[in-house]
Amino acid sequence: MGDPSGIGPEVVVKALADEELRSRARFVIYGMNEMLAYGCDLAEIEPFWWRLPHDCHAYEMDPKHGVIVLDYDQFGFAGQRFSQPTRQGGEASLMFLRDGIRNSMLEEGEPGRMDALVTAPICKESWTLAGERRYAGHTEMLMAHTRAKRAVMMFVSSKLRVALATTHVALNAIQNQLTIGRVFDPIELGCGMCERLGVEGPRVAVCGLNPHASENGLFGDEEERIIRPAIEYAREQGIDAHGPYPADSVFIDAAQGKWDMVVAMYHDQGLIPVKLLGFEEAVNVTLGLPIIRTSPDHGTAFDLVGKNQADPRSMKQAIELAIKMVGSRNYVQGRG
Amino acid sequence: MGDPSGIGPEVVVKALADEELRSRARFVIYGMNEMLAYGCDLAEIEPFWWRLPHDCHAYEMDPKHGVIVLDYDQFGFAGQRFSQPTRQGGEASLMFLRDGIRNSMLEEGEPGRMDALVTAPICKESWTLAGERRYAGHTEMLMAHTRAKRAVMMFVSSKLRVALATTHVALNAIQNQLTIGRVFDPIELGCGMCERLGVEGPRVAVCGLNPHASENGLFGDEEERIIRPAIEYAREQGIDAHGPYPADSVFIDAAQGKWDMVVAMYHDQGLIPVKLLGFEEAVNVTLGLPIIRTSPDHGTAFDLVGKNQADPRSMKQAIELAIKMVGSRNYVQGRG
Repeated sequence: MGDPSGIGPEVVVKALADEELRSRARFVIYGMNEMLAYGCDLAEIEPFWWRLPHDCHAYEMDPKHGVIVLDYDQFGFAGQRFSQPTRQGGEASLMFLRDGIRNSMLEEGEPGRMDALVTAPICKESWTLAGERRYAGHTEMLMAHTRAKRAVMMFVSSKLRVALATTHVALNAIQNQLTIGRVFDPIELGCGMCERLGVEGPRVAVCGLNPHASENGLFGDEEERIIRPAIEYAREQGIDAHGPYPADSVFIDAAQGKWDMVVAMYHDQGLIPVKLLGFEEAVNVTLGLPIIRTSPDHGTAFDLVGKNQADPRSMKQAIELAIKMVGSRNYVQGRG
Repeated sequence: MGDPSGIGPEVVVKALADEELRSRARFVIYGMNEMLAYGCDLAEIEPFWWRLPHDCHAYEMDPKHGVIVLDYDQFGFAGQRFSQPTRQGGEASLMFLRDGIRNSMLEEGEPGRMDALVTAPICKESWTLAGERRYAGHTEMLMAHTRAKRAVMMFVSSKLRVALATTHVALNAIQNQLTIGRVFDPIELGCGMCERLGVEGPRVAVCGLNPHASENGLFGDEEERIIRPAIEYAREQGIDAHGPYPADSVFIDAAQGKWDMVVAMYHDQGLIPVKLLGFEEAVNVTLGLPIIRTSPDHGTAFDLVGKNQADPRSMKQAIELAIKMVGSRNYVQGRG
């Protein structure tokens, strides 16, 4: 459910209000019954779930209930709507996520095991207010709790698939993070994801870091020193990778179908085209984890809370992508 | 005409083949009759110009000729088509540009004076082969030859107007160039350009440098240290400037009409959205010069030369924008 003070509760109930979507999987919401019911009220939706206390036994989760809410009612906001970062919001969303990860990490067949995790937006400031300063966001906590050695952020929309080499880092600090491995990982893991989505032998374009991909070293040397070797290495692994290409033209080619995936070197280079062409339906997927995890590409949007204006399309797409990935989970991730 | 080996000759003749466009101004092409005639052949267009030697006297440029080609036939390529960087291409394009600037700098009313300069693409490598290493491109040579103290690169398409704070610089060197003045200039000059185009009291959005505009200093401090003070200063000058905003959402708002102009901090941040939404019709305009100068937003495209595939739309838009700017030239540029 993400931060209870954000639009998480609203987009979760609006997305799952779709009976067709509900018919395709069983759902467990780690959240607060009170906030979800409020979201239903706002959108004039009949509640469609079965409530259980969050500390129930796994065998109480009866498969006949299509949607179960594990209720963390100790965080009852007592009717208050905050729409801002709060300590309670941080504590609640940390606990939802911790338990969701734990149950996703159970062995297949174990009671309570989840096949995939879809996360609603959290607020980093709420986490800080709750005393949690170790994680910059979902991804870092997911890596720590699943003991993953690497994680790659990828975005999937109907027009573009984009994987990032670096994520939430100051522009001037990219130079400290960009290595051959950091460029190779999104090529390899993104390629695996494309195959998982049914694309055979994906054609991967890799962006340059500098304007015009440095125009043969005219502005910067990372293309020769880092990006090209990563592409060469990927090609040696049998991946159909190409580049580095100027970032201001490669996304046009990708949107027109020339490329199945683009690897961007940094956040805005990848997110500007994803959001411009994604129209509220882009999905964020974390690659490299031992579990399946997707999320919508928006944040808590505190300014929209309680107005029934939150758009559930990205959350719906995130759920659909997770279902699709579960269906192909026998695919062996990575090639390395 | 730009580099004779690129698509310059083709887009120039294809753009000016439009009689309606020709009826709206008089044109002087600094170029080579031979290459332009070849462009006409390719596109099956009847030549529509009057040829004069480039060293003719200004009074020979008879106003009854709608289009005059000043022919630099000393660069005759003797029927060869290079489609690559060459010394001759560099020497020729340098001379076209030098003479075009010189005539644009003449006083109004002087014979041979040009009201505006539209440049076809040059090739930096050709310039280097011709021994000219001082200028990274058109803009730097324009600044030197017009003795301009500042110049701002701006892009205009039907959906977006974007001005840049930095241009052809390695990503890791942006930190050395970004100053309050370098952010203020595109706000001020871009705002003036919008007014020149008929937008009253333009609403200007300014991008952050870092992901999420640094999320209150979480990744980088340039937003607080440099960008916000530049915006404040612009507001004190009466400019309706706002931000800094996350770059991955601000262009969506601008494309939807919330902003009349966006100021981007670096090349790809501005060019990715311009090109994605521009579809071959974005125009580059250089602000801050004492002359009017526009150009198409594409390069020499050596791979397209001689195939009649070069798209003249951006060149046409560049010519139209120049005509529009001449029509509003009594507007006093800048507010500082």
